[in-house]
Amino acid sequence: MLAEIQLKEIVEQISNHFKNEELFHIKTGYQMPDQNAITHILLKIRQILFPGYFSHELSCDAQTEYFIGNHMINLYNELAIQIKAALAQYKKEKTSEERIAEKTDEICSSFFTSLPHIQTLLIKDIHAAFDGDPAALSKEEIIFCYPGFFAIFIYRIAHELYHLKTPSIPRIMSEYAHSQTGIDINPGAEIGEYFFIDHGTGVVIGETAKIGNHVKIYQGVTLGALSTRSGQLLRDVKRHPTIEDDVTIYSSASILGGETIIGKGVVVGGNCFITESVPAGSHVTVKHHDISITET
Amino acid sequence: MLAEIQLKEIVEQISNHFKNEELFHIKTGYQMPDQNAITHILLKIRQILFPGYFSHELSCDAQTEYFIGNHMINLYNELAIQIKAALAQYKKEKTSEERIAEKTDEICSSFFTSLPHIQTLLIKDIHAAFDGDPAALSKEEIIFCYPGFFAIFIYRIAHELYHLKTPSIPRIMSEYAHSQTGIDINPGAEIGEYFFIDHGTGVVIGETAKIGNHVKIYQGVTLGALSTRSGQLLRDVKRHPTIEDDVTIYSSASILGGETIIGKGVVVGGNCFITESVPAGSHVTVKHHDISITET
Amino acid sequence: MLAEIQLKEIVEQISNHFKNEELFHIKTGYQMPDQNAITHILLKIRQILFPGYFSHELSCDAQTEYFIGNHMINLYNELAIQIKAALAQYKKEKTSEERIAEKTDEICSSFFTSLPHIQTLLIKDIHAAFDGDPAALSKEEIIFCYPGFFAIFIYRIAHELYHLKTPSIPRIMSEYAHSQTGIDINPGAEIGEYFFIDHGTGVVIGETAKIGNHVKIYQGVTLGALSTRSGQLLRDVKRHPTIEDDVTIYSSASILGGETIIGKGVVVGGNCFITESVPAGSHVTVKHHDISITET
Amino acid sequence: MLAEIQLKEIVEQISNHFKNEELFHIKTGYQMPDQNAITHILLKIRQILFPGYFSHELSCDAQTEYFIGNHMINLYNELAIQIKAALAQYKKEKTSEERIAEKTDEICSSFFTSLPHIQTLLIKDIHAAFDGDPAALSKEEIIFCYPGFFAIFIYRIAHELYHLKTPSIPRIMSEYAHSQTGIDINPGAEIGEYFFIDHGTGVVIGETAKIGNHVKIYQGVTLGALSTRSGQLLRDVKRHPTIEDDVTIYSSASILGGETIIGKGVVVGGNCFITESVPAGSHVTVKHHDISITET
Amino acid sequence: MLAEIQLKEIVEQISNHFKNEELFHIKTGYQMPDQNAITHILLKIRQILFPGYFSHELSCDAQTEYFIGNHMINLYNELAIQIKAALAQYKKEKTSEERIAEKTDEICSSFFTSLPHIQTLLIKDIHAAFDGDPAALSKEEIIFCYPGFFAIFIYRIAHELYHLKTPSIPRIMSEYAHSQTGIDINPGAEIGEYFFIDHGTGVVIGETAKIGNHVKIYQGVTLGALSTRSGQLLRDVKRHPTIEDDVTIYSSASILGGETIIGKGVVVGGNCFITESVPAGSHVTVKHHDISITET
Amino acid sequence: MLAEIQLKEIVEQISNHFKNEELFHIKTGYQMPDQNAITHILLKIRQILFPGYFSHELSCDAQTEYFIGNHMINLYNELAIQIKAALAQYKKEKTSEERIAEKTDEICSSFFTSLPHIQTLLIKDIHAAFDGDPAALSKEEIIFCYPGFFAIFIYRIAHELYHLKTPSIPRIMSEYAHSQTGIDINPGAEIGEYFFIDHGTGVVIGETAKIGNHVKIYQGVTLGALSTRSGQLLRDVKRHPTIEDDVTIYSSASILGGETIIGKGVVVGGNCFITESVPAGSHVTVKHHDISITET
Repeated sequence: MLAEIQLKEIVEQISNHFKNEELFHIKTGYQMPDQNAITHILLKIRQILFPGYFSHELSCDAQTEYFIGNHMINLYNELAIQIKAALAQYKKEKTSEERIAEKTDEICSSFFTSLPHIQTLLIKDIHAAFDGDPAALSKEEIIFCYPGFFAIFIYRIAHELYHLKTPSIPRIMSEYAHSQTGIDINPGAEIGEYFFIDHGTGVVIGETAKIGNHVKIYQGVTLGALSTRSGQLLRDVKRHPTIEDDVTIYSSASILGGETIIGKGVVVGGNCFITESVPAGSHVTVKHHDISITET
Repeated sequence: MLAEIQLKEIVEQISNHFKNEELFHIKTGYQMPDQNAITHILLKIRQILFPGYFSHELSCDAQTEYFIGNHMINLYNELAIQIKAALAQYKKEKTSEERIAEKTDEICSSFFTSLPHIQTLLIKDIHAAFDGDPAALSKEEIIFCYPGFFAIFIYRIAHELYHLKTPSIPRIMSEYAHSQTGIDINPGAEIGEYFFIDHGTGVVIGETAKIGNHVKIYQGVTLGALSTRSGQLLRDVKRHPTIEDDVTIYSSASILGGETIIGKGVVVGGNCFITESVPAGSHVTVKHHDISITET
Repeated sequence: MLAEIQLKEIVEQISNHFKNEELFHIKTGYQMPDQNAITHILLKIRQILFPGYFSHELSCDAQTEYFIGNHMINLYNELAIQIKAALAQYKKEKTSEERIAEKTDEICSSFFTSLPHIQTLLIKDIHAAFDGDPAALSKEEIIFCYPGFFAIFIYRIAHELYHLKTPSIPRIMSEYAHSQTGIDINPGAEIGEYFFIDHGTGVVIGETAKIGNHVKIYQGVTLGALSTRSGQLLRDVKRHPTIEDDVTIYSSASILGGETIIGKGVVVGGNCFITESVPAGSHVTVKHHDISITET
Repeated sequence: MLAEIQLKEIVEQISNHFKNEELFHIKTGYQMPDQNAITHILLKIRQILFPGYFSHELSCDAQTEYFIGNHMINLYNELAIQIKAALAQYKKEKTSEERIAEKTDEICSSFFTSLPHIQTLLIKDIHAAFDGDPAALSKEEIIFCYPGFFAIFIYRIAHELYHLKTPSIPRIMSEYAHSQTGIDINPGAEIGEYFFIDHGTGVVIGETAKIGNHVKIYQGVTLGALSTRSGQLLRDVKRHPTIEDDVTIYSSASILGGETIIGKGVVVGGNCFITESVPAGSHVTVKHHDISITET
Repeated sequence: MLAEIQLKEIVEQISNHFKNEELFHIKTGYQMPDQNAITHILLKIRQILFPGYFSHELSCDAQTEYFIGNHMINLYNELAIQIKAALAQYKKEKTSEERIAEKTDEICSSFFTSLPHIQTLLIKDIHAAFDGDPAALSKEEIIFCYPGFFAIFIYRIAHELYHLKTPSIPRIMSEYAHSQTGIDINPGAEIGEYFFIDHGTGVVIGETAKIGNHVKIYQGVTLGALSTRSGQLLRDVKRHPTIEDDVTIYSSASILGGETIIGKGVVVGGNCFITESVPAGSHVTVKHHDISITET
Repeated sequence: MLAEIQLKEIVEQISNHFKNEELFHIKTGYQMPDQNAITHILLKIRQILFPGYFSHELSCDAQTEYFIGNHMINLYNELAIQIKAALAQYKKEKTSEERIAEKTDEICSSFFTSLPHIQTLLIKDIHAAFDGDPAALSKEEIIFCYPGFFAIFIYRIAHELYHLKTPSIPRIMSEYAHSQTGIDINPGAEIGEYFFIDHGTGVVIGETAKIGNHVKIYQGVTLGALSTRSGQLLRDVKRHPTIEDDVTIYSSASILGGETIIGKGVVVGGNCFITESVPAGSHVTVKHHDISITET
């Protein structure tokens, strides 16, 4: 057992680090956003947008509107609590409580109004997944268990909130998707319609990446920055590539740099490492003489 | 707060998407398979096959048979509920309820009868892991916390159900393994004895891949298709490679194509990108001149 | 339904595998370490080191010391139970119960005494992350949801216990981090101050790797062994590279071998595959002519 | 520890009692009604009939209908499962599955159609409680925490199901009320409007009791049978008293016998023991000379 | 299944009752007090006042103050939420939000300041129980499982809050005790030191009862009102008896009326029914000739 | 908010009461028995003795022995933990740890060996309940929801442990029954075969009461002591009555005193108050002239 004196010392040291180190100054009296609550909100939104898939609560057609209406209002409140907490943590000194409440309401209203549009986009993503994966047995299976689709679903939710300038919450959402699927899409990225990620583990899509319509990418693909050594100075610079419509990028390819543009219809082969633009319509592949085979 | 009118509109839009869009037509009156229940089944099977490792319930040797017998019958029923739900969702219009019940029973009986054989295969996989990893302190540690072994365990369960033509459930199982370990093994793949995956994050093994005995692979290895642009037309074609006995594949190597055969005893070096067959006994490595070192 | 006879047979077969196969001999009468309890301990330590971030329990400054003191003593006991279980499973036959209790107390006391130091290291890691990532909006966000930081936090805890020769538990901890973040850092690795991993999925850092101060690495980086074909014979050999101070390693680079040294200040470009030492100050990049672009 | 042989013996003895004793023959293959599920149903009905009192889910007026509609359909299904189980356990050999399903639907439909009427009765009971108890601060408090009102609420639900000839479930409901409040109202009793029980512990109201409107009773009151020594032969005989309108019965009074009628407006004093009818308008009291006071 | 039309009708009827009936007007936008939260608060207070008895969290003496301090601050906040909700539900129209917050703080501060005094009273009650019950094996057993002591504990907490004019919450607390123990003590009653209730089921102690020191009562005892027919008009009248010091009241005795005084040292025998004062020092018993024994 | 100084003071006062007051000295380093764990044990025993009634786990006859055997061993361990904790709290200073472990094992072994006998007694109690209650629809209903039977079940378990001289646990068990059913049977009482309690609320059966076979009692019956004013001096004296075979005691009768014997076959009417023996075969009733009826 720790001696009583020893215990007091350890407690004091840890407590003092907390008090002295500027970085730990959370604003007392305001809640921090709650990761579990945010996860719960995401899963509830999924239940609403795909009624019957993830909830035993829905048992007949007559119930559909009641089900959606009932949960949506609760969702509104749950989300408002989290957004308010996030706005309060990052508010400037002079911002009043009233302004935060008002801002919360503006964000929430806009977000919920955009839900039917997000649902429409997700339906298109499901079509893209079914058309793009020979191993898919049905569209239901995609909704049910495709990690690529789950990551896109969360991205589309988080992107809307990012767009509405909600602090912290979009990132907490995207890191949840990251931890569940190994797919790391920054909520700032702009992604078009009919998007599909197959397998997905290791995919990274950076904050300023732009992706067109009908794009398909595989596991391990990075849409990254060339260098990040200038740190916080780069905050608002475009650091990640632009991918135009109808591009396919096979596994473990890396495409880097804010001025790199992959033109319409390009096919990027597995393991390619690209730091310059590629003209529309071309095929990029790793050269065959890179490998040596030695018989032993 | 959302105005009442605004709320009604959003609810109606979402509800109408649900009703109009053909893809959302789940068969009302039938349950969907339940992901949580399926996860629970997997973890229960693990408790039965490795009694004492994952359950405080087992406290002495005299209890072993009671423990296995008691849980197995419950498992039988829990699995039957899921299989029945899956069969009902994908049934053709004329298939009777009786036929589904019968089919459920056939699959369940075959599956449980094969459990001792699966246990035997897993014991061999544990030997392979212990022999293959210098960092392994004991065999218990492998059962306890090796993600590679966990993914193989789930694959062997899911593959048996795939083999018995159970819809959806094998895929839900393999995506659970994928989300926990970053290892994505399609349940259709055929994998021999004494298989070992080290670290494992980013591994992808496609639906029609074939792997022999005593094969060892590392993180980031893809056994993939060359191209999947023809979509659903490729459903029954062999699209993934064949790996013969005693092959080792180091990290981030990609081996692609249904006609690519990696011969007995081949060693594939890290980051190799292979789209053609490699004769037995050879070593494949990335050429050294691929890298340029510039002093600054 | 399984016939009663068939059931008895399956139960007996599984039960007999359990009894015959040497590898399953867990020591009856001793508990196995419990993965859930260990996860719980990690999350509690995080609450103590970052008070107010992960617990609604802390509601004002006056409470801080009470909060830390109260939870620390419970943590001490929870951790002691797990360590005792681990020591008992791996004890030699002659080791007495008293010796195990004594050893448990030694490890626990040392571990808790080192907690303020670990907290100090983690504060430095947070500074490194904020300085190194243009997308980071605040230091709070890093503590809250950066997977790279979460993996380093768990590594620093697990490494201390590894250093104190605790069996099994450090590995169970690092595999938890691995499953949550896709980052696999062996608790035996030695890592300096101001360490940052961005995105992180697919990172592997081997048991005998050494990493200096101010090092930054990206997703998919492997610090691995050249070959592991000699299995358990390699247990105590240095098999993984040494990375000196101020090195940056971009995504999917592989650095292999126990004698490979990456000198001070080196920048390793994305996808590089390195098996030999690199002198201080140099830049390593993939050669551009590796890729062929074909217009179609 | 129990020796293995000893264990087997105890298990076999208990198991054989189970198999031999006729009374334990539950119908295998049918579920038993589930007490927890039934409790859950009762609490859900309370949420629906008093929206906003027992659920944080309801947050504005616009939600009320969605809330009721959504939960009611789920309740319908939950209740149907329990009723079906109860009907199956008590079915005669020749009753077909179809007939049970049909019967379940009939009971459920009638029950839900009567819910608005039950709500109306309960509102009247709340008025009676508020008017009758000087200690009641508000009507909300009665809904919230008066055990007498809780018991009456459950009685009115259980009585409707008793009336529809549902086996077992009404009794399970009334025993739940009994265990929570100490008030034991048999679901067969017939009770009028504006009924109030104060304090309530120890109240017993028998199966064939009849109670008029505006009746008020206190703790410890028994409306019981004179003798029950003939056991099952008495099943359909009126064994419990009739209480007419506007009667008050103070604490611990007992009124026994199927032919005993307490006339309109009677006041029964505390501790009275009554086995014969009392004419309308009279006051019944314990005689004062029953007590002797001895100074010591 | 309910037809869609039928469902709409039932939902509307219930919803309309809710909207029309005045009694259901809870103040929208304010939370109702939460029974589960209040129960939780009571059990937490018990953990603090009797450290180590009801929580595994306390494992050594050095932890005691940390334990109490940590939980007390959380309790403060949890209780404040409930008190605020209760004050808001019963506030007059003009009362401002600020006044409610202020009032909440006043009540909470006073309540917590009185906790050590309440603990002192409870310690005296434990002594009374041990001295008064030959079946008590130890004082620990009394703290642990005597329902009489549990009811007194809750009474002393609820009485303090009643005294501070907290609406609703004291009654919710006393009804919790009532439902767990069958002992119904109105929080308004005034009870002296060294109080003991044995067995307790059916005990009722009214709002305006006064009880001296060293009083002992048994199951089924009522300290009630003579008549309550004037309803709400009696709200502030003394309706229940006064019991002076050193009185013992045996099982099922009833003492009624606001002017009835049971003098110092009186012993009231079982089943006595008393509506007039009894002089100090006397014994009250049921007369023996009340019973007739008939040989059959 | 409490000021920091004020908080410290309250914490210190409560903490000091804890340290100074002798009665709170629980033996540090030993666990207290855990009420929840003991409740859980009781409910598990019920599952084992009535397989299929209270657990969905049992789904076919082939499973019965596995089910009982598996749970029984866990129960053995769970009960042993509680018994050891109870023995340690009450041990004399010199008793060694080994002796406690030994004693725990003796009690547990005896207890489990007696379970089949207890099951036999309970089956007889069910027959008594069915024969004695005209409102009982089936024997299943009695097992399922009769509070009288539940109280007797717990009594029979607690009595066996009382008989084996287990401290505290039997009382914790009987107080659980008391809180659920309002029936308070001291575990020391001796009760014969075919015992039935109808309704039950308010029943009290004292520690030294003796009850023969085929006895039936109703709600509110007290088998109590005449006076308990000598406190702990009465600990081992017979203080409660003896009830011979075939006696019926109707509601709210009180029978008091250790030398009071109710002879074979006696019928005691409701509300009788008896302090002297009654010869076999007689009927005891309240005299009719006790009540006065006044017309108003």
